[in-house]
Amino acid sequence: MPIFTKPLRVYFSPDKKLYESLRNILGFYPSNISLYKSAFRHSSAATLIKDGIKDSNERLEFLGDSVIGTVVADYLFKKFPFKDEGFLTKMRSKMVSRNQHNQIALKLGLNKLLEANNDRSSFSSSINGDAYEALIGAIYLDKGYTFAQTFMLTRIINVHIDMDEVETKEIDFKSKFIEWAQKEKKQYRFETITDGNGASDKLFLLHLIVNNEVVGAAQHLSKRRAEQLASEAACTQLGIGQ
Amino acid sequence: MPIFTKPLRVYFSPDKKLYESLRNILGFYPSNISLYKSAFRHSSAATLIKDGIKDSNERLEFLGDSVIGTVVADYLFKKFPFKDEGFLTKMRSKMVSRNQHNQIALKLGLNKLLEANNDRSSFSSSINGDAYEALIGAIYLDKGYTFAQTFMLTRIINVHIDMDEVETKEIDFKSKFIEWAQKEKKQYRFETITDGNGASDKLFLLHLIVNNEVVGAAQHLSKRRAEQLASEAACTQLGIGQ
Repeated sequence: MPIFTKPLRVYFSPDKKLYESLRNILGFYPSNISLYKSAFRHSSAATLIKDGIKDSNERLEFLGDSVIGTVVADYLFKKFPFKDEGFLTKMRSKMVSRNQHNQIALKLGLNKLLEANNDRSSFSSSINGDAYEALIGAIYLDKGYTFAQTFMLTRIINVHIDMDEVETKEIDFKSKFIEWAQKEKKQYRFETITDGNGASDKLFLLHLIVNNEVVGAAQHLSKRRAEQLASEAACTQLGIGQ
Repeated sequence: MPIFTKPLRVYFSPDKKLYESLRNILGFYPSNISLYKSAFRHSSAATLIKDGIKDSNERLEFLGDSVIGTVVADYLFKKFPFKDEGFLTKMRSKMVSRNQHNQIALKLGLNKLLEANNDRSSFSSSINGDAYEALIGAIYLDKGYTFAQTFMLTRIINVHIDMDEVETKEIDFKSKFIEWAQKEKKQYRFETITDGNGASDKLFLLHLIVNNEVVGAAQHLSKRRAEQLASEAACTQLGIGQ
């Protein structure tokens, strides 16, 4: 990289080290470094700047989360011209999941830049993913939407997300649930609440029950599909496979 | 407006009338008119373009909904520098509500451009708001993010949205519930039990869950409305805001 692309401000900044770390991670030198400092400041390390308002990354996370959603919506819209909005919605929710954002943050090495108080007990499990969202918010404010979009496409989506995996990740939730129940030695049953009495247009309402508690419920014309949906609800509720 | 700003293609286009209508509503002549035609095509008037895919406005609605969310997030982030993300989230949910979008669509006169089948019974109550979301998706694709943002700020937010009213307006039940959950540090989620699989006449069945307990349930054609109803039930059950 030619020396002249390094802005003068970097040489004389007290944040020289952060500038260089960000250059390595992002591929560019930030213009407004304070935005990035905020992005990496967990609320446990933040100070009050006005009554009730901390200089943490939570506001940037709110903004970045939205920018990510739009960049991913655009990406999917163009990548899948013949898929309907239901497919696009489902794909996006897989691409912007908490788990996915945490993984991206670790791949980018954002955890090394995080400023947080040592009391780990106050951390949520999404502290790294939240910092990633805040970082995208910072880039958006610092460099604009198109820049943030290009960054996400070239440095994240095309590099760190396996789209084939995202697309095929359609899961057999019933098997997944049963596997979990056997491993955890849980008693479970699918209980048919209404079975349509044989009418062809009636819905099956099913409850999936573990330890006498309904952990998933679903309604569908097909009993098999209702079982899948109830299992999916149960997996979400019980955090199975996340 | 000087004559030379009217592109040559408008004079010779079979869509001359639509060009002029859009010029009046938007303040500019579209570059890619077919995007706008799609934006105003309700699924009842759409034709199949490939197996299972119609040339309706639903894909553009998916994209536009996201763009609107980002533009509004940016607007609120800058307008309220000393408000936390909880406030921003609440304000945004009021600004992008179905009701708000329907009102904006009528103020812009989008209903006059809508292409829909005469059978009104198949219409959802949000047909106009959906067209507005699709229109923003079309502008984003046609002219880019910054253009769409400027359009929204100058022609919608600054003109058609009374921010004082938004701020003081009695909070919708979903916002009210979320505010309570954040304050009480409760984990919650909306679980879609049945999603109708994209069929326009199917009901969404939603559960609102706190600490693995269903505190509200509702069924509605519109997912957004079902969320409101489930939240209302939860507020009543938990005595929130009473």
